[in-house]
Amino acid sequence: MKLKILTILMCVSVNNLFASDISSTTDQVLFTINNIWMLIATFLVFIMHLGFATLESGLTRAKNTVNILFKNISIIAIGLLTYAICGFNLMYPGEFLLGNYFGFAGWGITNPPGIDGLVGYADGAYTYFTDFIFQAMFAATAATIVSGAVAERIRLSSFLVFSTIYVAFIYPIAGSWKWGGGWLDQLGFYDFAGSTLVHSVGGWAALVGAVVLGPRVGKFHKNGTIPIMGHNLPLATIGVFLLWFGWYGFNGGSVLSADPGPVSFVFVTTTLAAAAGVVGAMTVSWSISKKPDLTMVLNGSLAGLVGITAGADVITPMYAVVIGFIAGLLVVLSVLFFDRIRIDDPVGAISVHLTCGIWGTLAVGIFSSEYSFLTQLLGVVSFGSFCLVSALVIFYGIKMIMGLRVSEEEEMIGLDLGEHEMEAYAGFQIFTVE
Amino acid sequence: MKLKILTILMCVSVNNLFASDISSTTDQVLFTINNIWMLIATFLVFIMHLGFATLESGLTRAKNTVNILFKNISIIAIGLLTYAICGFNLMYPGEFLLGNYFGFAGWGITNPPGIDGLVGYADGAYTYFTDFIFQAMFAATAATIVSGAVAERIRLSSFLVFSTIYVAFIYPIAGSWKWGGGWLDQLGFYDFAGSTLVHSVGGWAALVGAVVLGPRVGKFHKNGTIPIMGHNLPLATIGVFLLWFGWYGFNGGSVLSADPGPVSFVFVTTTLAAAAGVVGAMTVSWSISKKPDLTMVLNGSLAGLVGITAGADVITPMYAVVIGFIAGLLVVLSVLFFDRIRIDDPVGAISVHLTCGIWGTLAVGIFSSEYSFLTQLLGVVSFGSFCLVSALVIFYGIKMIMGLRVSEEEEMIGLDLGEHEMEAYAGFQIFTVE
Amino acid sequence: MKLKILTILMCVSVNNLFASDISSTTDQVLFTINNIWMLIATFLVFIMHLGFATLESGLTRAKNTVNILFKNISIIAIGLLTYAICGFNLMYPGEFLLGNYFGFAGWGITNPPGIDGLVGYADGAYTYFTDFIFQAMFAATAATIVSGAVAERIRLSSFLVFSTIYVAFIYPIAGSWKWGGGWLDQLGFYDFAGSTLVHSVGGWAALVGAVVLGPRVGKFHKNGTIPIMGHNLPLATIGVFLLWFGWYGFNGGSVLSADPGPVSFVFVTTTLAAAAGVVGAMTVSWSISKKPDLTMVLNGSLAGLVGITAGADVITPMYAVVIGFIAGLLVVLSVLFFDRIRIDDPVGAISVHLTCGIWGTLAVGIFSSEYSFLTQLLGVVSFGSFCLVSALVIFYGIKMIMGLRVSEEEEMIGLDLGEHEMEAYAGFQIFTVE
Repeated sequence: MKLKILTILMCVSVNNLFASDISSTTDQVLFTINNIWMLIATFLVFIMHLGFATLESGLTRAKNTVNILFKNISIIAIGLLTYAICGFNLMYPGEFLLGNYFGFAGWGITNPPGIDGLVGYADGAYTYFTDFIFQAMFAATAATIVSGAVAERIRLSSFLVFSTIYVAFIYPIAGSWKWGGGWLDQLGFYDFAGSTLVHSVGGWAALVGAVVLGPRVGKFHKNGTIPIMGHNLPLATIGVFLLWFGWYGFNGGSVLSADPGPVSFVFVTTTLAAAAGVVGAMTVSWSISKKPDLTMVLNGSLAGLVGITAGADVITPMYAVVIGFIAGLLVVLSVLFFDRIRIDDPVGAISVHLTCGIWGTLAVGIFSSEYSFLTQLLGVVSFGSFCLVSALVIFYGIKMIMGLRVSEEEEMIGLDLGEHEMEAYAGFQIFTVE
Repeated sequence: MKLKILTILMCVSVNNLFASDISSTTDQVLFTINNIWMLIATFLVFIMHLGFATLESGLTRAKNTVNILFKNISIIAIGLLTYAICGFNLMYPGEFLLGNYFGFAGWGITNPPGIDGLVGYADGAYTYFTDFIFQAMFAATAATIVSGAVAERIRLSSFLVFSTIYVAFIYPIAGSWKWGGGWLDQLGFYDFAGSTLVHSVGGWAALVGAVVLGPRVGKFHKNGTIPIMGHNLPLATIGVFLLWFGWYGFNGGSVLSADPGPVSFVFVTTTLAAAAGVVGAMTVSWSISKKPDLTMVLNGSLAGLVGITAGADVITPMYAVVIGFIAGLLVVLSVLFFDRIRIDDPVGAISVHLTCGIWGTLAVGIFSSEYSFLTQLLGVVSFGSFCLVSALVIFYGIKMIMGLRVSEEEEMIGLDLGEHEMEAYAGFQIFTVE
Repeated sequence: MKLKILTILMCVSVNNLFASDISSTTDQVLFTINNIWMLIATFLVFIMHLGFATLESGLTRAKNTVNILFKNISIIAIGLLTYAICGFNLMYPGEFLLGNYFGFAGWGITNPPGIDGLVGYADGAYTYFTDFIFQAMFAATAATIVSGAVAERIRLSSFLVFSTIYVAFIYPIAGSWKWGGGWLDQLGFYDFAGSTLVHSVGGWAALVGAVVLGPRVGKFHKNGTIPIMGHNLPLATIGVFLLWFGWYGFNGGSVLSADPGPVSFVFVTTTLAAAAGVVGAMTVSWSISKKPDLTMVLNGSLAGLVGITAGADVITPMYAVVIGFIAGLLVVLSVLFFDRIRIDDPVGAISVHLTCGIWGTLAVGIFSSEYSFLTQLLGVVSFGSFCLVSALVIFYGIKMIMGLRVSEEEEMIGLDLGEHEMEAYAGFQIFTVE
């Protein structure tokens, strides 16, 4: 690696890596391809946020659609900005301050000057800026997961405050334990792309939010559960396909290079697990309810994807099918279970992201001989405890200070008119469904 | 290519291609870029399945939307899994068993051990896993094409059985004749990315399905045809744009490397043919019906894309415009023709994929001096005979064993309530359109 | 660069860059990755056209949806074809004919023979065909921007004629002044990816169109403005996310290579500006109207994106946040301003693309020490004058020759029934909103 020292990227003009007088070397070219793949993975993860927005709004009622879309576009913006302000440096602190549990590298993003922020940054795989932007896209995901479970009854401002705190502090601190090189990483815990670090972190907060808020009006009656149907299943389907699509960046980018072996391997395991999740969910839901349930099958593919995420690079394709299939079964049973214990999760976010996130993390300990089941379990429990307590504290704090739930009247007319004085489908005749 | 032998990819840990002690070579880096482009093409082809799902549901009635979405998410899952189980090894058998007509390399996907499955696999262009996953994404396409033509009246389980058989056996066996190095390949038949191997294979089965099922109730009357309008044209438009978008992977990936000359050439021919297809369909439909018909123009772009697919790498940009324009004319005339002979194809799948697939395949023999028109015609006829007979046998078998069509009553209330007990747009006031 | 001379790309067979008998060199591999990144950027810019189509139809009324979708699919086709016929050679004339104001390299696209059109074309960064197709995707954007501002009242054929002329001649001639190496380029004017060259060029014509046409029936009353709500906000949200997604190609591709430093830098500035635009628009609109307005927040992200486009490679991340935030404020104030002066822009296209395009161009002169504010202002004024006059002449010419606006009766029943005899949502009960 002998290229000349570049001027600092942060200054007005960005120097061209190859604009030097020497010919490019093989390492420089390899660096270029690794870096561009990470940026491609970045835009793929970005579009997952559209997937979340459409899935969530499709699976809820028309009268709350504006509210959900507003939350989703806000969360990605807030997640990206807070990650630039403090999240990135909390998650990758370099040095820890409190015994591998907490560290902070300072406010804002600061590109190491010259060649250090460029080719010297990540073993010649990508630049500092690529590292930041790829990780930043992940950050908002956790908060978006919560959004689905608390939909149709949480106050907008309260949700935005919760999300900001959770994504700015809780997600990156927890993440530092593994990806930042913290204590769980040192114990040998494995989570390739975030079954626990992203999906469960969101899932635990989703669970807490759903419990603290209570169910939507009309969801549970003395004699059982009344299903509240989503208002736009094509929209939900768009969401699922976009999430699957973006997952090729989520998992494929988590290789952290364009290395052909692992990236192509991860594409295969990710794909087969998603497909097996569809078949798993189809099998169990068709058996139980005697009818082919579209929303279950859609969630089945996401279940398979969440399930394979922790071990996409270390699970064989055959076991990826097994993991995905079981995730597809689990998500259906989990949805029924949470309905049974009267926790109301409008879009099945807890079942998809928490249940299958735990499953995927443990599955690494089961199907890969390299990792310990007990360490995986320790990781699940540690993340669970931290996230449960944190989410509980934040949600209760918000509840006491500013309130958490909209009025029953507002819930009945819908949050679109109540909070936004706007309709998602102006002109369409829509029945209010309760 | 002198890099050290890598450990087997299928084992617990996937080795890094460049993690060896030697410095990376130019060939290794070229391999990395070729491989990553093929994976990018893979996720582009994946999103075409969302394109099919939205196009097809947008062009049919609201009461059958859940059913169509369910079919589409199921088909991609089934297609991927069956391709892993047997399709890939039927399509690329290595050695043929029956005189270049049929071969089978065994069940499941088996990565050649060590370097052979990695850089030694495809002339240093991509890994075994990349090869599998790229081809697997193509496989489900053929079945999805059928889905459109038989929509709104086929029983869900019957369709799933048909698709599974067709995608697991018929598509790969036919495909082996050309892409697997079989008899048509040896005769000099050319089909770059699948005007015949993918689109016509789906189109022939679509034709058989539409004929065997018969038209939808109310479509044809004594005095002519009653158009049954699609219920959501924004959704259909999303579908067309996503298909066009994905086609950059479908055609661009069919170069089988990132080689700058051919890939950029294919981008240009593909784009210009699609654009010309829009203009062609606009011209003829506006002339005939005196009004600018959105669905015709949308199908025009797909017609141009299907038309250029067989020869995207060997047709000059100017001829790509000609081929696309003619495809745009043809698709409109073909839709009118099938209405005239009372074959009911709700979304125009036969016209787009079969008519223009044939046109594109023959066009290679017309506009490229390198290929013989007669050989192209032979390819069209051979694929047509095989697919027609196969589809006929399977559809009739299913009809006898389990029935093919829903009851007239179910067709009237819609398959969403009939098969799924679910509505796509809960809460919306929708008239039943017959 | 010693690879053997390749045969001409335009002939029947496209030669493989690396199929020669010599081993590939580092420069060849770097060329391959640069070229493939530009093609990736190309398909990202392509999907922005779906973003425009969905955003625009989502923000207008259901009765004009078919019309808008028809315009958008037509414009991309027309834009691509005219760019092949003359646009590309007007924008990049090589030699100017009229003192660096106008040049023309001839009709059609003509690949320089042999190696010159391949690796010798753009300093070893990409092929001739890549250059053409990337630029062609930009071309149609300008016309699409106009579409939003004149929506719901312009005659389809008149709009198509306007767009064809504007995209075929005005856009490329104006563009040649900077990107073609013309007089503004020589004066030191800077516009990285088109705040002025693309967005303002569209925005000026949008302004002229909105003024010449006059407001929609019922929009302005004696006592103020009556908001006409969009009919499908999920569709509009899909549009915004897809535009943001595609912007990674729009700005990322404008680096014109895969060079790791600048591309990753541009990803960061683009992302942070978009996020800050959301927060800026949220802040000001929530303050003014006391309610969280989804459409303002959506436009805020686009405002941030347009704002950063002129300087994405030379603005520091912190200033990118500032520019995006201010753009978010500006777009809201601009929408209110145009309502106040009774210029009716149904989707806010003028505010997003013109107001923020000007802001972004001037911001380069403010936040980057390398560029002069006055030169940036000169560029804005020059483009503005040329586009205003051109658009005025074309719109008035069309108005005199063939008429510009649909009848009031047609406007009331909607252009879908009036121009297309088609409904976007057949079967749905929709109130006519005036």
